[in-house]
Amino acid sequence: MRGLGDRFRVVGLAAGRNVTLLEEQAREFSPRLICYEGNEIHHRDVVSMKGAARASMEEMAAHPDTDMVVTATVGRAGLSPTLAALEAGKVVALANKETLVMAGKVVTQAAAHGRGELRPIDSEHSAIWQCLWGEKRSNVSRLILTASGGAFRDKSLDELRLVTPEQALRHPTWQMGRKITVDSATLLNKGMEAIEARWLFGVPFERIEIVMHRESIVHSLVEFSDGSVKAQLGLPDMRLPIQCALCYPERLPLPSLPRLDLKQTGPLHFEMLDLERFPCLGLTLEAGHRGGTYPAVLAAADEVAVEHFLAGRIGFMDIPRLIQETLDEHDGVRDPGLGEILAADAWARERAQDLVRAKT
Amino acid sequence: MRGLGDRFRVVGLAAGRNVTLLEEQAREFSPRLICYEGNEIHHRDVVSMKGAARASMEEMAAHPDTDMVVTATVGRAGLSPTLAALEAGKVVALANKETLVMAGKVVTQAAAHGRGELRPIDSEHSAIWQCLWGEKRSNVSRLILTASGGAFRDKSLDELRLVTPEQALRHPTWQMGRKITVDSATLLNKGMEAIEARWLFGVPFERIEIVMHRESIVHSLVEFSDGSVKAQLGLPDMRLPIQCALCYPERLPLPSLPRLDLKQTGPLHFEMLDLERFPCLGLTLEAGHRGGTYPAVLAAADEVAVEHFLAGRIGFMDIPRLIQETLDEHDGVRDPGLGEILAADAWARERAQDLVRAKT
Repeated sequence: MRGLGDRFRVVGLAAGRNVTLLEEQAREFSPRLICYEGNEIHHRDVVSMKGAARASMEEMAAHPDTDMVVTATVGRAGLSPTLAALEAGKVVALANKETLVMAGKVVTQAAAHGRGELRPIDSEHSAIWQCLWGEKRSNVSRLILTASGGAFRDKSLDELRLVTPEQALRHPTWQMGRKITVDSATLLNKGMEAIEARWLFGVPFERIEIVMHRESIVHSLVEFSDGSVKAQLGLPDMRLPIQCALCYPERLPLPSLPRLDLKQTGPLHFEMLDLERFPCLGLTLEAGHRGGTYPAVLAAADEVAVEHFLAGRIGFMDIPRLIQETLDEHDGVRDPGLGEILAADAWARERAQDLVRAKT
Repeated sequence: MRGLGDRFRVVGLAAGRNVTLLEEQAREFSPRLICYEGNEIHHRDVVSMKGAARASMEEMAAHPDTDMVVTATVGRAGLSPTLAALEAGKVVALANKETLVMAGKVVTQAAAHGRGELRPIDSEHSAIWQCLWGEKRSNVSRLILTASGGAFRDKSLDELRLVTPEQALRHPTWQMGRKITVDSATLLNKGMEAIEARWLFGVPFERIEIVMHRESIVHSLVEFSDGSVKAQLGLPDMRLPIQCALCYPERLPLPSLPRLDLKQTGPLHFEMLDLERFPCLGLTLEAGHRGGTYPAVLAAADEVAVEHFLAGRIGFMDIPRLIQETLDEHDGVRDPGLGEILAADAWARERAQDLVRAKT
């Protein structure tokens, strides 16, 4: 945003509980609307918020002055404002995974109905999106998502049973939040990306392939009906996909971004992923195939499992076990509405918590 | 063509002296016009040509029934019909290198003036073209041509002095004609492609980079102003770029084309090219920088040199020497018309022949 001040005006800013950062950002960007949890700001100097009015995320997302919404909240909190924005015909730049994993069909239907537009911020989906510019969607034959393989790509099954949260948080190529870094290490994250890709690009799930690519230089690829393959490449840096989503169809200079020099990167490798060592990937792909409420249940169970893993209460290989058990007990709904999805999510969280309690 | 019979009708066919093949093709495609050298067909059964009328290549290229011209002739013979087609507003699918190397400015001016369109057939340029679909030309910051490195990429300078024509004709990844395979081995071919790319895509010469890529899987890349890089990939097979040029913006299935599977290809390497071992590349890039009649002189001297090398009269490292000497003696014209270009070409051929004669 800071580099794009002449192109964008901030209508609204949303925070969770970090109101200190919200105040700082409000001073810099002078939003008309702000959103936060709790009542803390009421006790502070209103002047420091430059007179911004409090609103819900949904109100901000659908506000007449809003052209574009960046959904970067973690977890299911991003779902409802994203729906509100799409139904109101806004462009939504989506960094939140759960939105499409939990409710891909509902969300894409809302976009079609409200003439809203979804743009990806994730590096893999941004790569696919960029490869599709100027191409007919009907000419796409395959999406190929690349996966760094996560922190444990070279560990054996025996070693994986003993890894610690500290080890899981050391991602080889990307700097990210704790939850997503663990999801990268289990490869569940990559399965979620496949589900997202299906909804973002309208490609049947069985035409989405995942390839391990250690170097994280090729961010993803698209194969077309004539056999031609296009790829998008770059050094791992989120500024590029974020700017792409905000500025499309412009490509603005990012002078501080280090440039890719293939002569310096060393060889690029592409390998099979091992579903045996990383059962979370298989579970996620299976949930994606089954559809309905299964992906939401998987995402919810994973959130509970990762939380307990990070707290040291369960082991790394207990994460897929917990997800599997929760999925096994779930009675799926075939073509769920938002209410059924949220109910499945709530059920899965509770069930997963119970399962952990029963074991520890 | 055979697979695209329902989309295209052949208006004209041109041959050199291979009238047997021309007759065969005429029986299959029933062209209205044919072009060939000499008088041989006059003595044959006219019925076998299905009553096609004889015409010049320029007449065929500019004919009102012609929508698209495929220029696949070798050498300067492609130049004049390409110009005729572009001036008449046709789409030209260009497989001939000399056209743009010799007369890039004249040709692109003819296209602009006559509203003709140039489409590349070469795999590298097709890759760049495909990466540019849906992108603004003003957002291009760099073109990156890949080079297999040719038959001698791993030979030392001493070994290169002793290589035979038979060795030069063994290209590691592409099956091509004799002249172009030798040009691949000297890397002169890659320098010519840089000159072509400059004219095809309107990118300043200094923004065109060449990277050695042994596997010939990544056919070329484009870097954009925001640092994003796009690449086009595929197994080496000319059917894809040919069909792209003919059918754009369609991508028709090519079921017989083997599909790229990156998990099977092994790692992809990108290296620097060695200008010391391959002086033809440096000479070509220099001629490209100087512009004017220098590229035409380089191409002509190379044609003479390669012919003598293939006949066993000069050594492999004499090819750059002969080109260098011819270029050194040339008195360049800055902004030449077609006449001056053809005069420079004729001068260079004669001069190069004299230089060979003086030495052997």
